[in-house]
Amino acid sequence: MGLGMAQSLLRAGHRVHGVDIDEARVAAFRDDGGAEGAPADVAASLDAVVTVVLNGPQTEAVLFGEDGIAPRLTAGTVVMSCATITPSLAQNLEARCAELGLLYLDAPISGGSLKAASGDLSIMASGSDAAFSAAKDVLDATAATVFTLGAQAGAGSAMKAVNQLLVGVHIAAMGEAVAFAKTQGVEPETVLEVISQCAGNSWALENRLPHIVEDDYAPRSAVNIWLKDLGIVEEICAETGLTPHLARTALAQFQKAADDGRGREDDAVVVKVYAGEADIAL
Amino acid sequence: MGLGMAQSLLRAGHRVHGVDIDEARVAAFRDDGGAEGAPADVAASLDAVVTVVLNGPQTEAVLFGEDGIAPRLTAGTVVMSCATITPSLAQNLEARCAELGLLYLDAPISGGSLKAASGDLSIMASGSDAAFSAAKDVLDATAATVFTLGAQAGAGSAMKAVNQLLVGVHIAAMGEAVAFAKTQGVEPETVLEVISQCAGNSWALENRLPHIVEDDYAPRSAVNIWLKDLGIVEEICAETGLTPHLARTALAQFQKAADDGRGREDDAVVVKVYAGEADIAL
Repeated sequence: MGLGMAQSLLRAGHRVHGVDIDEARVAAFRDDGGAEGAPADVAASLDAVVTVVLNGPQTEAVLFGEDGIAPRLTAGTVVMSCATITPSLAQNLEARCAELGLLYLDAPISGGSLKAASGDLSIMASGSDAAFSAAKDVLDATAATVFTLGAQAGAGSAMKAVNQLLVGVHIAAMGEAVAFAKTQGVEPETVLEVISQCAGNSWALENRLPHIVEDDYAPRSAVNIWLKDLGIVEEICAETGLTPHLARTALAQFQKAADDGRGREDDAVVVKVYAGEADIAL
Repeated sequence: MGLGMAQSLLRAGHRVHGVDIDEARVAAFRDDGGAEGAPADVAASLDAVVTVVLNGPQTEAVLFGEDGIAPRLTAGTVVMSCATITPSLAQNLEARCAELGLLYLDAPISGGSLKAASGDLSIMASGSDAAFSAAKDVLDATAATVFTLGAQAGAGSAMKAVNQLLVGVHIAAMGEAVAFAKTQGVEPETVLEVISQCAGNSWALENRLPHIVEDDYAPRSAVNIWLKDLGIVEEICAETGLTPHLARTALAQFQKAADDGRGREDDAVVVKVYAGEADIAL
């Protein structure tokens, strides 16, 4: 998704430096028009830094770790953080950026790599007016929808976690329902046809059940994403008194899929965990 | 929903006898044009019997219990069973009807009392061609959508259980997500506004979350419905090797709501179970 956002920014006419642990990908991005220069050398010239990494620790490392870019940036530069992280880490990063005179936009993204490439992401953002203003060109180039969730970092990450809680539970519930139907002789395609027109419908069901119908588990979104994102839900809940009963149950099912060696497969493959438990073919 | 279906049948020009344990309701239906006569006396003259009761045991009692109507019906009459029951009971009732020369349509309904009254139900039906033909006038008068799920009783009830599994899990997940958001300072109306446009959306969220936003738990669909319907999911699973992890977890949350004296309140009140566990106000 970082590559797609970088391409969208290029298309909008900006100078864009791409950084990735995969050097070949950086080289390919430069062939497409990406700017030359190592992060340390160009940092002081940047108006915005967009971090699109796996999780909170990676975000923290990119900004404040050894060779982190934050201390090299010019005061007033905006740091836009797009990974799914805890609200408390987002607040922590906002405060540490402020100490350096930097603006911080808590801006988790949703939509997948295709929408990143076409500049049509949904972004759940919170931060100061100054951070929103400084990030405006980036938001305009990469997002179809920006939800403005408050003047402080944390609210954006909280809403992203709410969304992930629901999507994760809905995908696992879809797998549970499809396996349940199969035990009663009802095929997945019939479930899709009927339930997509009934009260049991969800975005997750409409989006993922076709993968089961087509028996195609090439990853559009992988099982491992849910170990991470439902793990973040658990991490946030550990800071509160809330027990996320359903998210925890869904996480356990995704964990079983990963334990079966399916972590890199499409998350709809969770249906096979249920099928295995019930000893049915799916 | 039975009253609404009877009114829709009246409006379509049929002779309709209404039966209810509430005699005042039967009298009111007669004032609206319902036909006179006790079930035992008119049974032999009926083309169709529609059972719209709470559960399987009530369906069985109405048809085959003491004073049950099935043995009094004329061969060729269709029995249309609309309660949410197990597929195995539906098959059993179909077989017992067949022994009496009766047709049986496994026809669980969905849509609520308003759609029942306007003749706009969704009906998930399975049964023989003869049963569908004999029930055609009833289906035409009461349903906007009829899903034709197979030539044998059971498939209709199975699909209804699939739907209820998903709706029940989705409602409880919505409550979990709203309480989770509140622990992070995000209000229910913000969750509704954002998530209804995101991947976390479901029919259940769009339909029930407004009840939380309005703090209105007058029952559109009550908590007790889920004790029954997710209980049926458990009952069906007990006949197979499938463990309904999420449905079981959702059922436990609805059970806690009922234990708190909220069984007759709107099912969105499940959010208060989570709020109580986390000791937050919602």
